[in-house]
Amino acid sequence: MALTIYGIAFSRAFRSLWAVNELGLDYTHVPTHFMKESKQPDYLAVNPNGRVPAMVDGDLVLFESMAINLYLARTYGAPLSIEDAADEARAVQWSFWGVTELESTLLRAMFTSLGLFGEEADPEKANETLNKGCGRALGVLDRHLDGRDWLVGGSFSVADLNVAGVLNLARTGRLDLSRWPNVSGWLDRCYDRPGARKTLEMARSARG
Amino acid sequence: MALTIYGIAFSRAFRSLWAVNELGLDYTHVPTHFMKESKQPDYLAVNPNGRVPAMVDGDLVLFESMAINLYLARTYGAPLSIEDAADEARAVQWSFWGVTELESTLLRAMFTSLGLFGEEADPEKANETLNKGCGRALGVLDRHLDGRDWLVGGSFSVADLNVAGVLNLARTGRLDLSRWPNVSGWLDRCYDRPGARKTLEMARSARG
Repeated sequence: MALTIYGIAFSRAFRSLWAVNELGLDYTHVPTHFMKESKQPDYLAVNPNGRVPAMVDGDLVLFESMAINLYLARTYGAPLSIEDAADEARAVQWSFWGVTELESTLLRAMFTSLGLFGEEADPEKANETLNKGCGRALGVLDRHLDGRDWLVGGSFSVADLNVAGVLNLARTGRLDLSRWPNVSGWLDRCYDRPGARKTLEMARSARG
Repeated sequence: MALTIYGIAFSRAFRSLWAVNELGLDYTHVPTHFMKESKQPDYLAVNPNGRVPAMVDGDLVLFESMAINLYLARTYGAPLSIEDAADEARAVQWSFWGVTELESTLLRAMFTSLGLFGEEADPEKANETLNKGCGRALGVLDRHLDGRDWLVGGSFSVADLNVAGVLNLARTGRLDLSRWPNVSGWLDRCYDRPGARKTLEMARSARG
């Protein structure tokens, strides 16, 4: 069976679509929406959690965007893979860090900034939420990126893609990241990659 | 340098202490407390996030309990390691699932159940929080464990340790897991292991 990524591009599926686009893989995209569609029986048979993304590659079915991407990097190589075992461990570390330290606050701030899901659009309040909930973590990331172009080793890898994929929520929500110049510069480098630009275009088209 | 685990045993460091105890490794334990101690300069030099656990193994410094354990499993072998690449990917998936689907709700419910950090002790409300916030996820886990003794492959591995390590919050908070009998049975199997019992004893001693 061909590699399949489930999940509409303006959702967490963005991250795994970015990964397959970086890797230049031949894949099928099933743009399951994260609201009702993901709760239908045929999709629950793929991912019983009713969330996107999910991935099918031969006999392997995976959920959790970060885990999918770490698998893709390990299986399909450059430009996402990491040869050094210690750097690979660091990539796993940063991927967990992205979801534990950033994700839930970024989602909330994005909703507030854009006025989604019943929130009133309030960019100032959204940036306060960002600073309060993620300020310390973004400071850690900014200091880590001081003098480094990439999170791990000397080149772009799945570590960058996974953390930048979480921070896409801040970009979508037009949150102010200028307090963290190393983070901003690194995000620009990540999102300037052809694989990222192609995936952003998919997300824009899907939003209509 | 010897392997060092930072973090007092009644904290998320429990999970990584359990891992080194399962592996029977020779290690140094620095019982950094998760409140003030973890915010001191000497500890921030190890983990700039000011959280526990952290691990140092030779030149490698890691934070994030799940990432530490996946590294330990890959590096130090049985009984935590997983040979099959697809099963290894599934272990990474379940580890992310544990922190994204369970952890924050379990923490909140535990605080409510035990009356910690300014919450009023209210076991009934705590179980409502559990059911509302984790009911769907625990249902997924319960169905996955139907007819299976362990999460991945045919034996106990880092996948079980990581997810059971998150669910220790439910055990500590004496939350009612009886609605999910396969989860309850599997947790009993996990926590009956000598490595788990040793680590629970460390947590009890540290709580005093």
